[in-house]
Amino acid sequence: MNILFIGDVVGRPGRQAMKQHLDPLVDARMVDLVVANGENAAGGFGLTAEVGRELFDLGVQVITSGNHIWDKKEGLDCLLSEGRILRPGNYPEGVPGQGSAVFSTPAGGRVGVINLEGRVFMANLDCPFRVADRLVEELRQVTPVILVDFHAEATSEKIALGHYLAGRVSAVLGTHTHVQTADERILPGGTAFISDVGMTGSQDSVIGIRKEIAIEKFLKQVPMRFELAKKDPIFSAVLLDVDERSGQARTIERILVRS
Amino acid sequence: MNILFIGDVVGRPGRQAMKQHLDPLVDARMVDLVVANGENAAGGFGLTAEVGRELFDLGVQVITSGNHIWDKKEGLDCLLSEGRILRPGNYPEGVPGQGSAVFSTPAGGRVGVINLEGRVFMANLDCPFRVADRLVEELRQVTPVILVDFHAEATSEKIALGHYLAGRVSAVLGTHTHVQTADERILPGGTAFISDVGMTGSQDSVIGIRKEIAIEKFLKQVPMRFELAKKDPIFSAVLLDVDERSGQARTIERILVRS
Amino acid sequence: MNILFIGDVVGRPGRQAMKQHLDPLVDARMVDLVVANGENAAGGFGLTAEVGRELFDLGVQVITSGNHIWDKKEGLDCLLSEGRILRPGNYPEGVPGQGSAVFSTPAGGRVGVINLEGRVFMANLDCPFRVADRLVEELRQVTPVILVDFHAEATSEKIALGHYLAGRVSAVLGTHTHVQTADERILPGGTAFISDVGMTGSQDSVIGIRKEIAIEKFLKQVPMRFELAKKDPIFSAVLLDVDERSGQARTIERILVRS
Amino acid sequence: MNILFIGDVVGRPGRQAMKQHLDPLVDARMVDLVVANGENAAGGFGLTAEVGRELFDLGVQVITSGNHIWDKKEGLDCLLSEGRILRPGNYPEGVPGQGSAVFSTPAGGRVGVINLEGRVFMANLDCPFRVADRLVEELRQVTPVILVDFHAEATSEKIALGHYLAGRVSAVLGTHTHVQTADERILPGGTAFISDVGMTGSQDSVIGIRKEIAIEKFLKQVPMRFELAKKDPIFSAVLLDVDERSGQARTIERILVRS
Ligand SMILES: [Fe+2]
Ligand SMILES: [Fe+2]
Ligand SMILES: [Fe+2]
Ligand SMILES: [Fe+2]
Ligand SMILES: [Fe+2]
Ligand SMILES: [Fe+2]
Ligand SMILES: [Fe+2]
Ligand SMILES: [Fe+2]
Repeated sequence: MNILFIGDVVGRPGRQAMKQHLDPLVDARMVDLVVANGENAAGGFGLTAEVGRELFDLGVQVITSGNHIWDKKEGLDCLLSEGRILRPGNYPEGVPGQGSAVFSTPAGGRVGVINLEGRVFMANLDCPFRVADRLVEELRQVTPVILVDFHAEATSEKIALGHYLAGRVSAVLGTHTHVQTADERILPGGTAFISDVGMTGSQDSVIGIRKEIAIEKFLKQVPMRFELAKKDPIFSAVLLDVDERSGQARTIERILVRS
Repeated sequence: MNILFIGDVVGRPGRQAMKQHLDPLVDARMVDLVVANGENAAGGFGLTAEVGRELFDLGVQVITSGNHIWDKKEGLDCLLSEGRILRPGNYPEGVPGQGSAVFSTPAGGRVGVINLEGRVFMANLDCPFRVADRLVEELRQVTPVILVDFHAEATSEKIALGHYLAGRVSAVLGTHTHVQTADERILPGGTAFISDVGMTGSQDSVIGIRKEIAIEKFLKQVPMRFELAKKDPIFSAVLLDVDERSGQARTIERILVRS
Repeated sequence: MNILFIGDVVGRPGRQAMKQHLDPLVDARMVDLVVANGENAAGGFGLTAEVGRELFDLGVQVITSGNHIWDKKEGLDCLLSEGRILRPGNYPEGVPGQGSAVFSTPAGGRVGVINLEGRVFMANLDCPFRVADRLVEELRQVTPVILVDFHAEATSEKIALGHYLAGRVSAVLGTHTHVQTADERILPGGTAFISDVGMTGSQDSVIGIRKEIAIEKFLKQVPMRFELAKKDPIFSAVLLDVDERSGQARTIERILVRS
Repeated sequence: MNILFIGDVVGRPGRQAMKQHLDPLVDARMVDLVVANGENAAGGFGLTAEVGRELFDLGVQVITSGNHIWDKKEGLDCLLSEGRILRPGNYPEGVPGQGSAVFSTPAGGRVGVINLEGRVFMANLDCPFRVADRLVEELRQVTPVILVDFHAEATSEKIALGHYLAGRVSAVLGTHTHVQTADERILPGGTAFISDVGMTGSQDSVIGIRKEIAIEKFLKQVPMRFELAKKDPIFSAVLLDVDERSGQARTIERILVRS
């Protein structure tokens, strides 16, 4: 089974890169399921129902997210009750939305998707390792094909979760830093891993933000009104070939397309 | 001029990867200058005079460093007075060592090297952007070929410094996360950039540390005595081709060799 | 000379506590100069020209601030060009506003006021210790009576600056935590010190915020729209008696008045 | 019932302040139970079996702790299996030691003690609010007299937990900042509260550390070998009068004795 996972889609430039590259890629590589991290899809900060629909129309079947999913407050509860949109599963009890679900591919395969958020340099959430234990066990009742989007800052935490889940899930894919890493590999037990899938958005920027403003922020250390960059959109993803029977990944391939 | 920059060398496995790969690479690619980040070269934490000498014997001409350079306290002042070892230049006045220097290649070229450390999620140092301004101006009196090792955690800070120095230095190369990124490129003005060169050390690990211990640390959140991992050493570097006249980088090539 | 320093004024409840307590206190204790930290004076977040005027009308002669001064973006430059409003002096060069000034009391005394911000758990500013060196030296050309508002989170950083400046300034007064500490004392050399002066605002709250919302935030770890608490306003300040000739503080007295 | 709670005992100076002040205080105020936070009792960093015994011999019946309890690694498991020594209860499952227990006073009263650690600017532990829910419910099966040592950095988190547990426990007492706050009060429902009880150790210091070294650390931003300060030991505590039947606190009194 071929699964395409697209890294943090940032605003309109990110959505345009998807419009340009997604369909041809799905065709050429016979992709069965498309998952995209949408935490920055609406104007760079958060997600709206409208932008969610746009991503689904572009061919995405599952949207994962991360710390920025809370940025747009209007319609958030409604958005998170949409079954195809996940937020990290290690937010505490009582927070709206869900952190995992099982999805069916057109060909009838079943894929469990888990979304988690790191804690190093981030929020005080429940332990992603222990929540992973629970969610993986739940999903394995249904399917051995399980994908984890681990939205985290520190390479140490991401790699540790990869090793921790090796042999139990099909893939642990990092998001959040907006920079694709070159460490994709198959861990023992058939778990595909990459520290970060990277961003789908304007590369002539500072992780999607207009570079002049980001530089000014570093120089002055006062709050700034960020604006999205527009130039040089890139499309960042990984393509997984997963054995449906065992859930083991056979290959992980980095994809980074410049427009 | 061909410059090879090697990312954080972690302990004996890192030094062994260098022993295996450095000489052939220098020969094959006609490398003029070898720079390596040595902040983790001694047992994973810091640097000693002995390990410094070992790196120089292996063919390194300049050692840069970062936050871990202070880990081994014995002989530190002596080490940092060795002209070929740099520590980040944005430590405050009064801290031993130097953050930049000019080095000569065997062929008679001159290369300025600047070492800086990020502040996001790290220590409260002087502003790396403003210190860069000063050091770049100083070195440009001597040579247009200038290399910056920016030892930092956050992708935003690294990319922002890249854009900030674009056109003024030959390269801004990130270190510290121990994971190579796939975003190498030449910024406008001829500045080679990569968010992180990656680690030279055991890949079957969590950024160089034995994975079982790192996982235990994440699960328990109490201090652990870390041990170095030994298996699967990798060699991570970038190779730059820099125009000696203009100081502009013509190419940046990622190198990641498994043993 | 009697100087009254009022800790972080939080919104309308804080201003009302001032209306009630300031005048009688100034009369009873023959206060020569009133300084107040106004970083939260406008609705709990930042300061406006209008609220600044209100504080001046209430009898404040100097307004200091801190990290929240940047919250209200409209009219900020104008506000910070008002000579009686300070922002921390260790923001980098190029940031609007000033971090120190000399003020005259009605009786003709001169008081230097310095505003600084901590870095531990806060922003990446210039070193408050070194900026203090410079600003103290400048002000001492004019007057030996110098007051420092050190707006900082960590007790260690605040106490360290107190010891660092002991004998060089009349007082180092902490702000920012919104909780008054009981460690007021005169350090060797005649420097009055307190880790935190505390908040002037609603005590039936979480540092000024409605407690139900603050608790929900800790339970859920997602962003919340904060609202100001209104009940039980308190007035927190310290009263200093400073020798005008030497600049040495004779006494520091904590003031905490419930309404 | 009179309960004396002593804030972070720092090294030998702290223990000597206890030797001097504890017995007379227990006599004069007819104290039924003495609890002390011992996370810094051994040389300023951690606790040993020997120092634990010394504290018990001085009259302490229960030792609570915090983030520094892990500093001395030898004998730690043994230490934490001693029933009278608690570590924060919101460390994850599998960590040695316990976070709550019930103790009997000589007069036959029963006091539940809970130890928790904050997460703001600290480690990624389980939610102290939710763990408090569970532990309070457990202890209330046995006794309504319940004391919480909340070892935390941020005033917001401490005050929020106070309000959260108001009416359910006898006291929420903050520790960790080593500076006594002046905000002691009885919250609605009879819960005594103070943001921080303060340190029992050398006051002529930076939170217990020799001030020259602490200042140097702030100036240079490199690791330092800390040494304990010795001069001017202070004894910081709060005295609670708790109604045994209801568990409600009648009074909370701050105690700060200079030697
Ligand atoms: Fe993102
Ligand atoms: Fe994110
Ligand atoms: Fe490193
Ligand atoms: Fe590092
Ligand atoms: Fe404030
Ligand atoms: Fe503040
Ligand atoms: Fe402590
Ligand atoms: Fe502590």
